[in-house]
Amino acid sequence: MATDVPSKWNTPLTSEQFPSIKRGRYSHLTKTDIKHLSQIVDGRVCTSGKELDKANVDWLSMYRGRSLLLLKPKTTSEVCRILKYCHGQNLAVVPQGGNTSLAGGSVPVFDEVIISLKLMNKIISFNNLSGALVCEAGCTLQSLMDFLDKEGYSMPYRIGPKETCQIGGNMSTNCGGMHVVRYGTRHSAILGLEVVLADGSVLDLLTTMKKDNTGYHLKHLFLGAEGTLGIITKVSIECPVKSPSQHMLFLGVPSFKHVQNIFKKAKFDLGEILSAVEVFDETVMKLINKNLSLPNPLSRKTAFYMILATAGSNTRHDAEKLESFLSKLKKEGAILDGLQESRPEKMQQHLWSYREKIAVALKYEGVCYKYDITLPHDQFYQVVEELQTLLLPQPPVMVCYGHFAEGDAHLNIVTPHLKAELQGKIENFLYNWVKSLNGSISSEHGLGIQRRDQIIFSKSLKAVEMMRKVKEVFDPQSILNPYKVLPSKLDAKKRLPFLSRL
Amino acid sequence: MATDVPSKWNTPLTSEQFPSIKRGRYSHLTKTDIKHLSQIVDGRVCTSGKELDKANVDWLSMYRGRSLLLLKPKTTSEVCRILKYCHGQNLAVVPQGGNTSLAGGSVPVFDEVIISLKLMNKIISFNNLSGALVCEAGCTLQSLMDFLDKEGYSMPYRIGPKETCQIGGNMSTNCGGMHVVRYGTRHSAILGLEVVLADGSVLDLLTTMKKDNTGYHLKHLFLGAEGTLGIITKVSIECPVKSPSQHMLFLGVPSFKHVQNIFKKAKFDLGEILSAVEVFDETVMKLINKNLSLPNPLSRKTAFYMILATAGSNTRHDAEKLESFLSKLKKEGAILDGLQESRPEKMQQHLWSYREKIAVALKYEGVCYKYDITLPHDQFYQVVEELQTLLLPQPPVMVCYGHFAEGDAHLNIVTPHLKAELQGKIENFLYNWVKSLNGSISSEHGLGIQRRDQIIFSKSLKAVEMMRKVKEVFDPQSILNPYKVLPSKLDAKKRLPFLSRL
Repeated sequence: MATDVPSKWNTPLTSEQFPSIKRGRYSHLTKTDIKHLSQIVDGRVCTSGKELDKANVDWLSMYRGRSLLLLKPKTTSEVCRILKYCHGQNLAVVPQGGNTSLAGGSVPVFDEVIISLKLMNKIISFNNLSGALVCEAGCTLQSLMDFLDKEGYSMPYRIGPKETCQIGGNMSTNCGGMHVVRYGTRHSAILGLEVVLADGSVLDLLTTMKKDNTGYHLKHLFLGAEGTLGIITKVSIECPVKSPSQHMLFLGVPSFKHVQNIFKKAKFDLGEILSAVEVFDETVMKLINKNLSLPNPLSRKTAFYMILATAGSNTRHDAEKLESFLSKLKKEGAILDGLQESRPEKMQQHLWSYREKIAVALKYEGVCYKYDITLPHDQFYQVVEELQTLLLPQPPVMVCYGHFAEGDAHLNIVTPHLKAELQGKIENFLYNWVKSLNGSISSEHGLGIQRRDQIIFSKSLKAVEMMRKVKEVFDPQSILNPYKVLPSKLDAKKRLPFLSRL
Repeated sequence: MATDVPSKWNTPLTSEQFPSIKRGRYSHLTKTDIKHLSQIVDGRVCTSGKELDKANVDWLSMYRGRSLLLLKPKTTSEVCRILKYCHGQNLAVVPQGGNTSLAGGSVPVFDEVIISLKLMNKIISFNNLSGALVCEAGCTLQSLMDFLDKEGYSMPYRIGPKETCQIGGNMSTNCGGMHVVRYGTRHSAILGLEVVLADGSVLDLLTTMKKDNTGYHLKHLFLGAEGTLGIITKVSIECPVKSPSQHMLFLGVPSFKHVQNIFKKAKFDLGEILSAVEVFDETVMKLINKNLSLPNPLSRKTAFYMILATAGSNTRHDAEKLESFLSKLKKEGAILDGLQESRPEKMQQHLWSYREKIAVALKYEGVCYKYDITLPHDQFYQVVEELQTLLLPQPPVMVCYGHFAEGDAHLNIVTPHLKAELQGKIENFLYNWVKSLNGSISSEHGLGIQRRDQIIFSKSLKAVEMMRKVKEVFDPQSILNPYKVLPSKLDAKKRLPFLSRL
């Protein structure tokens, strides 16, 4: 994922896509600035060329900034000195991890200085008893998974771009991924953070303690803040022991009512070993079959497909639980067909690929509007039905898949060409609908620049007001990742102009 | 617990115990104020009598305020109107839940108006599929446990005073209790909060969504803030399904090295069903035997005792895992004797009582200095050895017990009479030692008024500075639970006067 260098000419400039967003009153980078900043990082800079071009564009090639400077610090102290200087000179910056953000959060909008954390990739310590791992923010998820594997431990989350994404970015976007049902969200796993604040000072919250009730729990503010409150430089995370017993089920399910029942039964019958509950609809399966030449692994077509994963300590016990669970489901007609798999390579290469390649299968169909919403379990799929009715007589291709256990729906609508009017119609319905159900308009992808103006569909004006005040505390000049997460202006008396981009 | 009304004359006034703490420049309550506030809550007030006396004293009878007014709102709207008025009149308030705080956080220091949440005790909704429970802040933990039991679900934590403590207070102190190893901290279970801010406005963060990455994750600020940032009025919490299979082990362990090994083996062998890992030393057992007439349930004395609890979905599987685990431990000489129990009434009444009655057993010995610290697992017990050496030639009775899985040590030192000099010596060593190990001086009890000045032993001056700024954002006049959590003044150039109370 995200390995090809996107052509800097294919992606329109973000500033042209969002003409309503004006450049903040930041200084313009001078030769003196570049010289000074280059010295801080001992020459680890780019002022032109492919590396800078790539860092200016997000991996989905949706957003493009025009930063003139990419800095690659190796230590917290270098990050401090960079920010102290930028703060003093009123230069805006954007922190960048693996640049796999799905909401344009990790690339500049105008000419912000890019601070890449990729050279800060050391594992600092691991405690084999508590499972506490301390590492620098630039470690890739895959490198940490490999390290822990040798220690008999594992990471408490797994997300798609694991070879590229970095732990600092994972924390900053607070993406949940597949195994939240078993290991909880980042908020439960994270033990501590080291953060460099906008003025270059260090906020050391890098404890390895699971329990610590001394004052306000500040670290949680940085989870999901997408680098707008500080730059995470070190992370301390509690890692669970590796489960020696892993199983997967791939189920063909006749109706959405049955999807709900299967989830509930799984909570009770598989209990402590249940690790992931994924769902996708028949349209997804058709597109996978057609565009990736991957045949349906089941012998018949069904309206929905579910992938359940388990992680336990005893293979025989887990297999028994799964057998009893499956036999109940069959008896009740909750599944029409199913596969059970416990061979690691088959799980990885075969079954998970149906889930992980959905985005690729969709790409073949045209332009894809991607939404990542949390909905109550009852309304999880109703969104598709409502939208299809709304867009009659010719609804576009529409698929819904996601992390069902958490109500996290990845809704994708595909059309041959970009149609602003269609997008407006969809989003006007969708965000209001999510709001009416007290759901989330960004379940795990974050707001970035893409959905910052839509925050009011998930948060009250009072909440946004308090966020804005918190931002002022941590970054009074607003030099950190500007134009992201929070809307530029908030007029409490007037609803924000909706979809100003269109 | 905490059911007797403490005599208001037995407990010295907090203001006399802490002469260095000066009353803030708040207004003094007038008859007009009382009349106005009484109207808001429709006469649910106390201005004298036992109920007010009791609300002025913490349940350990350590702190006593002299509030002249106790208000008992029934709705969020009433809380809003109370705070709006108090904010306007510059009257300080203290929110009170079950008043079981162990750090004096829930009682007034001077004449703060007490806002009791106890009449806000309604269960608002429960979703039988997601497990999301929404309730008012004044629900007792026991009432929620009883409600969920009937639904096939359970609360994700358990703490001692469950009949008395309230969920709003549980969130505000962020106490972890017994089952953090299985269900994580409050930060993982909490889905949303409704909070009334100091100015009487409502901050509605009452989502029931597990995943929601829309802006800053503000709710976590209120967990552990002990009511100094806002008054929690409603709580939404994710509840796990009830485990049909519960087991306990009571083990006699020859050395602390073995305690560590048993914990590690339990993580690997019991894996997903491991729910609690408690430890206590031989001195605890002696005091339980002597003061409570509870005999050692094991046939021999050992240096340490451990209680392990498991919660799973299949009794036979769990029993098998436990048998295999125990047989390994025996073979390695890691345990000298042990009991296994799966009968619910025996677990509750017999085995858990050894853990839960420790505090009572200690009371018989005299004055008890209680510390609640988190330490790295390696140094968990070393603290006792270090302190015994420090206090030679006649070290007082000293016991250490706690939640070993999280490194949460409840250290208790007992002397026949209060000795300020001894306490000073202990704390001077202890807090510096915790700091040197990057531990926590308040693992789960909170800082309250008791340890607010010691926050710097667990948090950097920068962190305290940022907390102070966050406090100013949420409570600019500082009317919410003043004198708690944060020290009054912070001089960055000078260490705070240590133990000013002595």
